[in-house]
Amino acid sequence: MGDLPYGPLTKYRDFATFDWKKMKNFVTTTDVLKFEKVLHDEMLKHPLLYQQQLVTPSLKEQRIITAQKLKVLYQIVEKMMNGKAFKSLEMLSFVNAVFALDVSLGLKYVVNSSMFAGGVLRMGTERHKEIAEQALRGEIYGCVCFSEVAHGTNAQGLRTTATYDLKRKQFILHTPDFEAAKCYICFGMLPLYVLCVNSKRILGKSAEYGIVYANLILPGGENRGIHAFLVKIHDTNLKPYLGITTADLGEKIGANGVDNAIIIFNQYPVPRESLLNQVGDVTEDGKYIANLNNSKEIYQINLKGFSESRVRVLAMTTSYLVKSLTIAIRYAAVRKQFSPSDGQDEVSIIEYQTHQYRLFPYLAMAYVSKIFCQYVFKNVYGMTPLASIAEELHAITSGAKSVIVWLVRDAIQECREACGGHGYLKASGIGEMRNSNDLNCTSEGENHVIIQQTSNWLLKKWPSVLQNQRVKNPLRSIEFVNDAKNILNTKFSSSVMDIDCILNTFKWLTCYMLKTTYEKHQAILKQSSEFHAKNEIQVFHAKTLATVYVQHLMLSVMKEQIADTENTELKKVLSKLFILFGCWCLDKHMMKLYSGGYIINTNAPSLIQETILNVCGELKNEAVALIDAIAHPDFIVNSILGHSDGEVYKHLEAAVFQNPHAFGRPSWWTEILEHQNVFSKL
Amino acid sequence: MGDLPYGPLTKYRDFATFDWKKMKNFVTTTDVLKFEKVLHDEMLKHPLLYQQQLVTPSLKEQRIITAQKLKVLYQIVEKMMNGKAFKSLEMLSFVNAVFALDVSLGLKYVVNSSMFAGGVLRMGTERHKEIAEQALRGEIYGCVCFSEVAHGTNAQGLRTTATYDLKRKQFILHTPDFEAAKCYICFGMLPLYVLCVNSKRILGKSAEYGIVYANLILPGGENRGIHAFLVKIHDTNLKPYLGITTADLGEKIGANGVDNAIIIFNQYPVPRESLLNQVGDVTEDGKYIANLNNSKEIYQINLKGFSESRVRVLAMTTSYLVKSLTIAIRYAAVRKQFSPSDGQDEVSIIEYQTHQYRLFPYLAMAYVSKIFCQYVFKNVYGMTPLASIAEELHAITSGAKSVIVWLVRDAIQECREACGGHGYLKASGIGEMRNSNDLNCTSEGENHVIIQQTSNWLLKKWPSVLQNQRVKNPLRSIEFVNDAKNILNTKFSSSVMDIDCILNTFKWLTCYMLKTTYEKHQAILKQSSEFHAKNEIQVFHAKTLATVYVQHLMLSVMKEQIADTENTELKKVLSKLFILFGCWCLDKHMMKLYSGGYIINTNAPSLIQETILNVCGELKNEAVALIDAIAHPDFIVNSILGHSDGEVYKHLEAAVFQNPHAFGRPSWWTEILEHQNVFSKL
Repeated sequence: MGDLPYGPLTKYRDFATFDWKKMKNFVTTTDVLKFEKVLHDEMLKHPLLYQQQLVTPSLKEQRIITAQKLKVLYQIVEKMMNGKAFKSLEMLSFVNAVFALDVSLGLKYVVNSSMFAGGVLRMGTERHKEIAEQALRGEIYGCVCFSEVAHGTNAQGLRTTATYDLKRKQFILHTPDFEAAKCYICFGMLPLYVLCVNSKRILGKSAEYGIVYANLILPGGENRGIHAFLVKIHDTNLKPYLGITTADLGEKIGANGVDNAIIIFNQYPVPRESLLNQVGDVTEDGKYIANLNNSKEIYQINLKGFSESRVRVLAMTTSYLVKSLTIAIRYAAVRKQFSPSDGQDEVSIIEYQTHQYRLFPYLAMAYVSKIFCQYVFKNVYGMTPLASIAEELHAITSGAKSVIVWLVRDAIQECREACGGHGYLKASGIGEMRNSNDLNCTSEGENHVIIQQTSNWLLKKWPSVLQNQRVKNPLRSIEFVNDAKNILNTKFSSSVMDIDCILNTFKWLTCYMLKTTYEKHQAILKQSSEFHAKNEIQVFHAKTLATVYVQHLMLSVMKEQIADTENTELKKVLSKLFILFGCWCLDKHMMKLYSGGYIINTNAPSLIQETILNVCGELKNEAVALIDAIAHPDFIVNSILGHSDGEVYKHLEAAVFQNPHAFGRPSWWTEILEHQNVFSKL
Repeated sequence: MGDLPYGPLTKYRDFATFDWKKMKNFVTTTDVLKFEKVLHDEMLKHPLLYQQQLVTPSLKEQRIITAQKLKVLYQIVEKMMNGKAFKSLEMLSFVNAVFALDVSLGLKYVVNSSMFAGGVLRMGTERHKEIAEQALRGEIYGCVCFSEVAHGTNAQGLRTTATYDLKRKQFILHTPDFEAAKCYICFGMLPLYVLCVNSKRILGKSAEYGIVYANLILPGGENRGIHAFLVKIHDTNLKPYLGITTADLGEKIGANGVDNAIIIFNQYPVPRESLLNQVGDVTEDGKYIANLNNSKEIYQINLKGFSESRVRVLAMTTSYLVKSLTIAIRYAAVRKQFSPSDGQDEVSIIEYQTHQYRLFPYLAMAYVSKIFCQYVFKNVYGMTPLASIAEELHAITSGAKSVIVWLVRDAIQECREACGGHGYLKASGIGEMRNSNDLNCTSEGENHVIIQQTSNWLLKKWPSVLQNQRVKNPLRSIEFVNDAKNILNTKFSSSVMDIDCILNTFKWLTCYMLKTTYEKHQAILKQSSEFHAKNEIQVFHAKTLATVYVQHLMLSVMKEQIADTENTELKKVLSKLFILFGCWCLDKHMMKLYSGGYIINTNAPSLIQETILNVCGELKNEAVALIDAIAHPDFIVNSILGHSDGEVYKHLEAAVFQNPHAFGRPSWWTEILEHQNVFSKL
């Protein structure tokens, strides 16, 4: 780990009470740091990956550049891994670096390697394996055709059909109308060429594939529900096969290096073997055979896919959070505004309580989230057989995906505003983070819909409590709920907001929200349907329930991590981060603590708010070093405001002066007269 | 007013209990509707103004197009107004339409006509009038050079100097270093040419001007503080004069049709008469003469400028709100997801309580804000001599700008997410609204800084209350504070959340926040400086104080407006909007109501939350018609999801199929091999 450059940030670095390198080793563990170092060094060899784009290239150029970057990334992965899969924390580290560098690059990689190849391996059998392996090596590019124009998160609403034709012994894929067109397909037209032609790989089977989700219809007309098919989409000349129409979806808010498309199938035949038949198969004579008799097994295969997608989102959203905070906090330490009185020097804006309150709770969250990501990655990609923990993990990842993505959304916006006018410049880099994270709110399960997976799982547990049975939670995320009856009788009585007080308050809050949400649900059920009842408990009950459950779990994981260090300086500052994030979350749940009777005649509200402001004040001298310990390297941060040397104005000056069109008359001034003619009739 | 097209939205339109045309007439008054109709009709004659851009043009093209649009807009204004100024509500209506159509166009127009010309008229004297009038006619284009690279909202920190040179009898403008370079200058290079050459106007004096704010330094070295100068920046060939360096600031998050720039002065001489000398002047022999002896008068001249800028922001942010809601609510009525049970039809997502709760409070706010905008425009541009109300108006507009821009920021994000994956498409139009409004958070006074103007003004009033003196508030925005002692003794005792109950609660809340903020401020002052004390009261006190003050005022204005209608159907639904917005705001202030003792042992929290959900349910059948009554016409909404015909999927299909590059192989597929060569060495 190199030292950081001397400059405007040195003053605040020197204030820190801990060694940022030790903190970095603690938060990211030495093994993973080694992996990260190699990855960064390899990336640095390819300026294409991190060239600063002062002006957004055209859509066409963005896609060509992304494709070229993707090729480089596959080369880097091959060199580093030599065919081996990433270990769980290496995967986390990889997602962390690649998505902060370029969201389009990350998405392209993930769609092919994880969603396509991973999906084929998970849902297919031996006959599909070769294709998945080709994709894993980056030799072919596969897409995933799940969402349709009018249906996304609601899988039951999908309307594409795959009808088994007895005579042809083929499935016939069909799109009934435009509303059922497959949508947001992430194509890989370019990598196909780039990888196959240029890397001297054999073109061979390099047609482009897609996993297509469709209703499996048997010859008699019976609909066996949504199944996945492995389907060739384009030939080697990038032309879609007859019976397939593809069209570009056009520009998006962000991630425009990704060429999202629509696919329409018109009675398109695919071989019987295209069916990814882990779950069930269709015989030559059109009989359906369930390969997994246990619907629970099928469910768990799906849950694994969902959990993998969602922990990836957790990693990327945390990465965006860290990058945005790096920019906002370094700039806040450098930027000075207003003097206490005439003649006195101006004050760095990090000194203002308001500014601390705007940024530091999110800094605390960044630490909590980074540590939480390690926890979920270890569980999803770890040794424990996934089936045994699938449901609880699904509840955790669904809720955490929503809760954390939303908090990061707000954090990035706060960072953007905290950087003032310069935060509005493209060169600040924050706008791009916002656009990248924005995608996460509605993809991989729309947040408002999937957070219900968490509350639904929790609600199913409450009857056990009522019947004095132990609650089954192999990951022990709600082990304390077994003690709910006692917990609900406790009151807030602490005079100081320490780690245990915060966790106890969250335990009470989770039990209280579980109980009241359950009761409200039951009450509505008496007069109405389950569908209606589930909808009517969301706004003020179920959503809060899922939120406090996730926040309690994040803090619990953080507590264990803090207990793991012997270094008292680190322990001290990590505890402050815990307390700040905990109190800041509780402040937003205060009404429930009041109305549920946990807080009666105490000074709890002002205690919590005072703790927030005090800890913010204490962290003022730690913040820059705390960022140093988790920041991406400068070539990834890639922001005039967030460079580790703190030379904000010099970087701004350089960015302005590097712009070839910056000076004097605009390059296009002579074109005006020509344009006159075009528009003069208007 | 034409009828709306038959289609997927007809069902919900038919549900409405009121006539949307009558509502439209009521909310926008017949006079203004006539003006709006002419404006829309004129705009419709120029397809350039509203051509759909499926793909963002290059920065260069965006600027050329914006300049061309600006020319058209000046022609329209000339035709409509024939040299007359807009009346107050016409101005509101104009800003409403132009900014929703194109933020860059709006900014370009406003910078020249209002900020430049208005600034010259406000701060200059007879000798500057001609230039201002040329700008008002669009014959020349002027910019405003206020912010510097390292200072914006803090005007005292500006470092550009204008030193009077006795020998030359000129001011010498100088930029000491890059940090003091003038920044975010909105140039008008193109309009200059377009307007002067093409509209056959005489080129004459058409050099580009800027109002430059600089420290006026007298020959002896005395600094008389920030003054404004009217300065020629470019000659008629668009070349900056010797001694001026200009550079483009580069791409921004949004508003890229505006060519923001940096200006550096290097000992640049300007005539003595350049000084905008309303406030003070410098004689030929270098003496400073204060033209206004009363510092209050000077202050009020500045306040007028600020208030004008800020009410314009209120108009534009409300316009963005309405446009985003139009898109999200129409799409919510059309889009169906999930069936209550197998075999049943899917349900429009507007039927879901969660979705109602996400959108309808903002719909209610849109009505409250539209009416509030009329109130502030009438005051700023109205008959009352501004001086008498300047301070109160400044407090109102500063606070309202922050509070409303932030709420609209959240509203637009909610709309974006409520539109799911399609909301992420450029063609949905919401991303652009977000980028446009984002600017408002940090420009025209950074929100966190200017909201302090409001709390500072309020805090100055509290001593009067303590001393039993009447509080001076010519606009009566805090007239009730005269009764604070009684109000603070009241308790919440209502069993129903009606208009008066909500206003009374807000009155208590404002008095309570005023009292507690004042007391906290005084307590800190005992041990610390004023600078410190002001900073330490912001987070949990002063910001909330300003917020509740603004919200109470918005609701009070809404109440008066509701009282103005005789139509019982309108009255009924407008009251629901009042109640929803009021309760939704109060729900977020509940903790203060609790901890301040206004709510004791009552069911107020659940009453407020139940009211919110019930009114949301009632508004479900009104929402589409409520949007119809305030929506921009389709050519301004310009969204595949928000068209008044509700044919979401047809518009999406058309947008996809109109894209010339949509089909089959990307147009650039043959270029890949060429690109290989460029990158193959990487």
